[in-house]
Amino acid sequence: MADVEEKRPALGFAGGTLDRMDAWRGDAAALAAAFAHPAARVLLLEGLSPVVDGDRLAIAPLLPDARVEDHGLLGVDAVGPLFVALKGQALPHGAQVAPGLWDLQKLLSPEDLAHYATAKALVDWHARHGFCAACGEHTAPVRAGWSRRCEGCNAEHFPRVDPVVIMLAEYDGKILVGRQARFAPGQYSALAGFVEPGETIEEAVARELWEEAGVRATAVRYVMSQPWPFPSSLMMACVAQVESAELTLDTTEIEAAMWVDRDGVRGALAREDGAPFLAPQPIAIAHHLLRWWVEN
Amino acid sequence: MADVEEKRPALGFAGGTLDRMDAWRGDAAALAAAFAHPAARVLLLEGLSPVVDGDRLAIAPLLPDARVEDHGLLGVDAVGPLFVALKGQALPHGAQVAPGLWDLQKLLSPEDLAHYATAKALVDWHARHGFCAACGEHTAPVRAGWSRRCEGCNAEHFPRVDPVVIMLAEYDGKILVGRQARFAPGQYSALAGFVEPGETIEEAVARELWEEAGVRATAVRYVMSQPWPFPSSLMMACVAQVESAELTLDTTEIEAAMWVDRDGVRGALAREDGAPFLAPQPIAIAHHLLRWWVEN
Repeated sequence: MADVEEKRPALGFAGGTLDRMDAWRGDAAALAAAFAHPAARVLLLEGLSPVVDGDRLAIAPLLPDARVEDHGLLGVDAVGPLFVALKGQALPHGAQVAPGLWDLQKLLSPEDLAHYATAKALVDWHARHGFCAACGEHTAPVRAGWSRRCEGCNAEHFPRVDPVVIMLAEYDGKILVGRQARFAPGQYSALAGFVEPGETIEEAVARELWEEAGVRATAVRYVMSQPWPFPSSLMMACVAQVESAELTLDTTEIEAAMWVDRDGVRGALAREDGAPFLAPQPIAIAHHLLRWWVEN
Repeated sequence: MADVEEKRPALGFAGGTLDRMDAWRGDAAALAAAFAHPAARVLLLEGLSPVVDGDRLAIAPLLPDARVEDHGLLGVDAVGPLFVALKGQALPHGAQVAPGLWDLQKLLSPEDLAHYATAKALVDWHARHGFCAACGEHTAPVRAGWSRRCEGCNAEHFPRVDPVVIMLAEYDGKILVGRQARFAPGQYSALAGFVEPGETIEEAVARELWEEAGVRATAVRYVMSQPWPFPSSLMMACVAQVESAELTLDTTEIEAAMWVDRDGVRGALAREDGAPFLAPQPIAIAHHLLRWWVEN
């Protein structure tokens, strides 16, 4: 297993390489030209799942009857413009629906995984926002799929990105990991929760640690971030110094929690026999946050 | 003016001191008890504007006919539970609508400004989400005002928090500030933009700098964050090293931009005569990001 760890797998869903071409989104002529470009392609999804073609995401030419207003512009790469069908597209013969989420990282390149994340989050948002939250009328995609406009009140709605804090409490050379009842046996991870209106990232970290574990943060350090397309979160990983190691768990959220030292976290990341817990897979930012803590 | 700067005004809208009592939100009995508490109060808004009572936010007892389902629980302080009416509440005699946004920070304590931010963002979100984006039916507040449930499809919708990156590009000891056409004469600030699905904070910073100023980021450092209740953003301030000082401005976004050294930024923050630009007010995170850069 040491070999796997040596490969330093990338943070899942980060690392996209498309130029998103924001300038085209509001420019009908530029968008039409991109859609008509001979190298314009569409990234295929099966519902919200990725479709793979060998070890790449399946990408196909635009269908002859495809309409630009049914597509979202993901961006441009060296080949040309890349779109996604906002309501899905029939699969070409031979394309396979991709395996489960946790296997995707073994199969796809980091940039493919990132491009899937963008496409999935965008298509999912459209599927759940056919109506205007302000007035209840129908909405339709505009801006190359990057917003929807209400046909009733004309309100414009933009794709949601939900900021989430995910954090390790640190005390006396150990960090706190917890597990939810739905986790695999032995698996523990960083605690996490949504940022709410009226708080900073650092305040959200402190609130979540207080609510879920009963520990008071005295200092919070941001470490890294990750897009997480289920449905569309922005994971922001932090380490928080806390006042004491005494825990009061919110057992509706956290089934169990424990303090682990660097050797224990190192063992968990390397999946060693006898490690104190099973660490999250490298597709998740919690894996990289644990690794960062071990190395810093 | 040096005196004003010496006071080190707080970051606007950050620093709330209420315990949000997440555990009560889904517990009808606990919520009813909080609402019936003799010390339960309501933070008054005039529409979406704050109401001030001397140098504090106006807070009043709950009206006798008030119903818990029409209120959002902001949290608990040493006095007792604090609510906000989700559809507004008539102003008591003598209460004054607060002055403009930019004056609020001179008038209110940091925690009052933070509590206003939470209340304003929450009430505003309810006002704009009376219908289900998924099916178009009516929604109604649940969870003590922290979500809405669809009366048609039963979907639950949570308050939006939109992550925004705001950043200084740095090159050769200078940082980049830009101005939008709507800014006051001479005012420049950090560039900014919404984080999109499928990107990290750091990637969003790099994309925005490329789109708006034509500069390529090579390293991005997160500095601090701020809730911004217009309507409900999470501002995430960063400094990005860039490859060159050569600019290509997107003039639909940025009217002008310039590179400024530490002495220039120091002068702008102190509002000195002859400073190269007018810095944003301390209520905005851009002010604190500029200050952080000068001091680091």
